[in-house]
Amino acid sequence: MMAGMQTLKVIYDTDPGVDDAMALLLLARHKRIELIGVTTVFGNADIATTTRNALYLKQKLGFSAPVAGGAGAPLVGEPDAPPTFVHGMNGLGDIDLPDITAAADPRPAHQLIIDLVKADPGEVTIIAVGRMTNLERAMREAPEIVGLVRQIVVMGGAFGRNGHTGNVTPVAEANIWGDPDAADIVFGAAWPIAIAGLDVTQATVMTETYVAELAAAGEDGAFVRAISAFYQNFHRESAGLDGFYVHDSSAVALALHPEFYQMETGAIRVVTEGIAIGQTIIKPDGRNYPPGAWDGRPSQRIAVGVNAGAVLKFYRDTLVGSG
Amino acid sequence: MMAGMQTLKVIYDTDPGVDDAMALLLLARHKRIELIGVTTVFGNADIATTTRNALYLKQKLGFSAPVAGGAGAPLVGEPDAPPTFVHGMNGLGDIDLPDITAAADPRPAHQLIIDLVKADPGEVTIIAVGRMTNLERAMREAPEIVGLVRQIVVMGGAFGRNGHTGNVTPVAEANIWGDPDAADIVFGAAWPIAIAGLDVTQATVMTETYVAELAAAGEDGAFVRAISAFYQNFHRESAGLDGFYVHDSSAVALALHPEFYQMETGAIRVVTEGIAIGQTIIKPDGRNYPPGAWDGRPSQRIAVGVNAGAVLKFYRDTLVGSG
Repeated sequence: MMAGMQTLKVIYDTDPGVDDAMALLLLARHKRIELIGVTTVFGNADIATTTRNALYLKQKLGFSAPVAGGAGAPLVGEPDAPPTFVHGMNGLGDIDLPDITAAADPRPAHQLIIDLVKADPGEVTIIAVGRMTNLERAMREAPEIVGLVRQIVVMGGAFGRNGHTGNVTPVAEANIWGDPDAADIVFGAAWPIAIAGLDVTQATVMTETYVAELAAAGEDGAFVRAISAFYQNFHRESAGLDGFYVHDSSAVALALHPEFYQMETGAIRVVTEGIAIGQTIIKPDGRNYPPGAWDGRPSQRIAVGVNAGAVLKFYRDTLVGSG
Repeated sequence: MMAGMQTLKVIYDTDPGVDDAMALLLLARHKRIELIGVTTVFGNADIATTTRNALYLKQKLGFSAPVAGGAGAPLVGEPDAPPTFVHGMNGLGDIDLPDITAAADPRPAHQLIIDLVKADPGEVTIIAVGRMTNLERAMREAPEIVGLVRQIVVMGGAFGRNGHTGNVTPVAEANIWGDPDAADIVFGAAWPIAIAGLDVTQATVMTETYVAELAAAGEDGAFVRAISAFYQNFHRESAGLDGFYVHDSSAVALALHPEFYQMETGAIRVVTEGIAIGQTIIKPDGRNYPPGAWDGRPSQRIAVGVNAGAVLKFYRDTLVGSG
């Protein structure tokens, strides 16, 4: 640990997912992170698959934090079909997976979140990179945790900055679109939330060259290359990109290095119906509007700009041991 | 008229409104415009007031085109209270108005639109700077006009470009928000539509100095200053602006000088329910999304960038006689 730099106690709420796994690698390796819990949610794959993958990553990466399985469906309605065209049939780019020997925590995800937050008041950062379903349930069952969480850092949403709008519809990002009702509730609660949406995650791209260099540097990098090949192929075919967007690892970067990001503040709502369902909308602080749906909501923080080079360097340095 | 430049036959669909009046002044004075009809709609004031104002402007500015009164309420529901804090109680910045001697055309607005378009197939440009209510009714009663209109140029909406989002809510612009159902229908029809939304109209500002110079140049400029004082005051108090946004005149500029604008193309939907009601959303051509609400809609054009200096010069030059 660098002198004077504080360690973050982190619960990672995730739906692995290729980029989820890449971010979990960061959390497992970074010297300033104390990973205290991993909770799973449906999304990039169904809940059985994302939980299995989290347990696989626990044994593969060798972290000790408990893994607890969480929500398998959104707050309202049924889950959509998983995006197997993005993350593969097994959620990890269709690499071969061994038998899983790690066991899940007996508690459901929301209970593990509640227990860990209450055990360490004011000290726990939640990095949430999937649907907000587990967080909504945790705050519903134990509202007192809203005042006890240090910060929630979210990968999700799209605020239309820098030309980056939605990836599931022209305005909706997948994590928020997948459970807009839960997200609207979570973003409206008075815990401090910082959001890295597509505005910055799509501005941060790992090229094929970057990944090849990571792979040459050691076992962790080779793992990144293995799980991301399918994902890279999706980006090439759908967006003509030489590389892939750095989604979930951006939330880790934002938690550890807020100086990499330009932030804006305001009340946030999520659209829960109609053609814009899943859209995240901020009412920037200081902008005047007639009375409306944003009134009385807490001011949260969204990333609107990023030093992408610094994020990429941070990721590489963490994996090769100098981070 | 400049050699080689084509005259545009224009129907102006409007809800005067201070900036509506300023744009009508442009239309009345510009040598390349043949104003063939003015149709009114509720919005900046109620329909009796906007129609009275259009008739006042006919006698004040001295144009011969018929003025026809149109819709007093949106397609669905009741009209909202007029924004008297923006345009004044009388819709024209509370200047003194004389008795009105000009008479309205006996036809309703939608019928005048139908008649004029059918009388000149392929030749009529509709500049629509209010709610889309009259246009929806015209196309509903005479669907054949969709294939007969040369172009519709709209001031309305906000597509989130250049940091410009909504002015009534964080995502909705007043003209579209005031009748989102009509706008969604009109933008989905296969007539060619070009839209100047807040993305460009809020990037074009007439300062107090600019208006003072206009006023010094002649009677038309003095009229602009008289009707815009109240409007300027609203902008100063609500947005801290030294000047005011050039909304409706931007549609005239886009019709006559498309080279002032950078355009983007795509299918457009308008949100008709929920917190994002009134938001305009484009699915840019060439962007891939799963099947959704934008599919099968015609590609329309939106302005995403503007040479504001050129627009301001165009306005001034038109009023002082060199445009």
